[in-house]
Amino acid sequence: MTDSKKVRRGSGKRERLASAAAEVLHTQGVDRTTLADIAQAAEVPVGNVYYYFKTKDQLVEAAIDAHAQTLGDLIAALDELPTPEDRLKALLNGWVEQRELTARYGCPTGTLASELDKRADGLDRSIAAVMQVLLDWAERQFAQMGRADARELAVALIAAHQGISLLTNTFRDPDLMTTEARRLERWIDSLTQGAQQ
Amino acid sequence: MTDSKKVRRGSGKRERLASAAAEVLHTQGVDRTTLADIAQAAEVPVGNVYYYFKTKDQLVEAAIDAHAQTLGDLIAALDELPTPEDRLKALLNGWVEQRELTARYGCPTGTLASELDKRADGLDRSIAAVMQVLLDWAERQFAQMGRADARELAVALIAAHQGISLLTNTFRDPDLMTTEARRLERWIDSLTQGAQQ
Repeated sequence: MTDSKKVRRGSGKRERLASAAAEVLHTQGVDRTTLADIAQAAEVPVGNVYYYFKTKDQLVEAAIDAHAQTLGDLIAALDELPTPEDRLKALLNGWVEQRELTARYGCPTGTLASELDKRADGLDRSIAAVMQVLLDWAERQFAQMGRADARELAVALIAAHQGISLLTNTFRDPDLMTTEARRLERWIDSLTQGAQQ
Repeated sequence: MTDSKKVRRGSGKRERLASAAAEVLHTQGVDRTTLADIAQAAEVPVGNVYYYFKTKDQLVEAAIDAHAQTLGDLIAALDELPTPEDRLKALLNGWVEQRELTARYGCPTGTLASELDKRADGLDRSIAAVMQVLLDWAERQFAQMGRADARELAVALIAAHQGISLLTNTFRDPDLMTTEARRLERWIDSLTQGAQQ
């Protein structure tokens, strides 16, 4: 998460392909995506792709790395905020800002996990590691709020996001995300009040 | 939901193929499944499949109908219970009972929705209709508990299930489902207390 500048150095073909892979896998899913689709999105000749990535699975792995990078950048930005409540609510606001894209294609990380989890070929472990980073971060926020049940609350929050992303996508209704985020804000406030009692 | 006997009449090849399609799509996903996979699981000669289903999409539609049937049977059983709190908690218990299968392959309906939602070709609407039935049922339970915010609570409950199913699957950890179901039980109890105040 700390070597963002190194990973993004230049905008070489490898980086463009990884970034395009993340985007195309989000909109099309893994199994419906070809190396040619990703090459086209990255504006790289398909013949050049094989120089960087021998198989589609290697490009999926690079897309997962791109998700980890995006998440690392997000967490670094959230950690600038003063209190754990501020940080958690800023995370919710980010989810609301993405609601139109979520209504059309679901959560980029969640839908990729859902598809890879049926495979159990190693890529499912890579995407789990990305989700673990967010879970651990959320747990630290609840712990700083004085909650002994920080782990359980972190799981509930990340599950709520994954679930409302799926419903927002299934019903093509971005307002579902907004309403649930406002409910989760009130829930976070109630947890603070609970810890103070 | 009311014509279960008609749909299940006999165990003809069509019904066996629809049931096998629901199962194979759950374990393999839509795009990695062939008509031959479903024929084999149903123990129907692959050449016979075309008599009942001309395309894989028709078999996916039949699998969605099978999910609707399973959901209708579940709701009928839940509706035998005396109070809305009993019914909602019995729903949670059903989720916990499925936790090992969920850890391996995710929620059958949710992962199918996630995959079809990227397509927007009509099948995404069919799976949304199934999820809508469960959402409407949950809303009726919260309304019977005297909650004016029954719709929002129903969305939160079904989202919590979809989200924890995804995390249970991603981390291959059935205990996540158990812990979250117990948390949701306490949440349901707190809503009743809130309505009584």
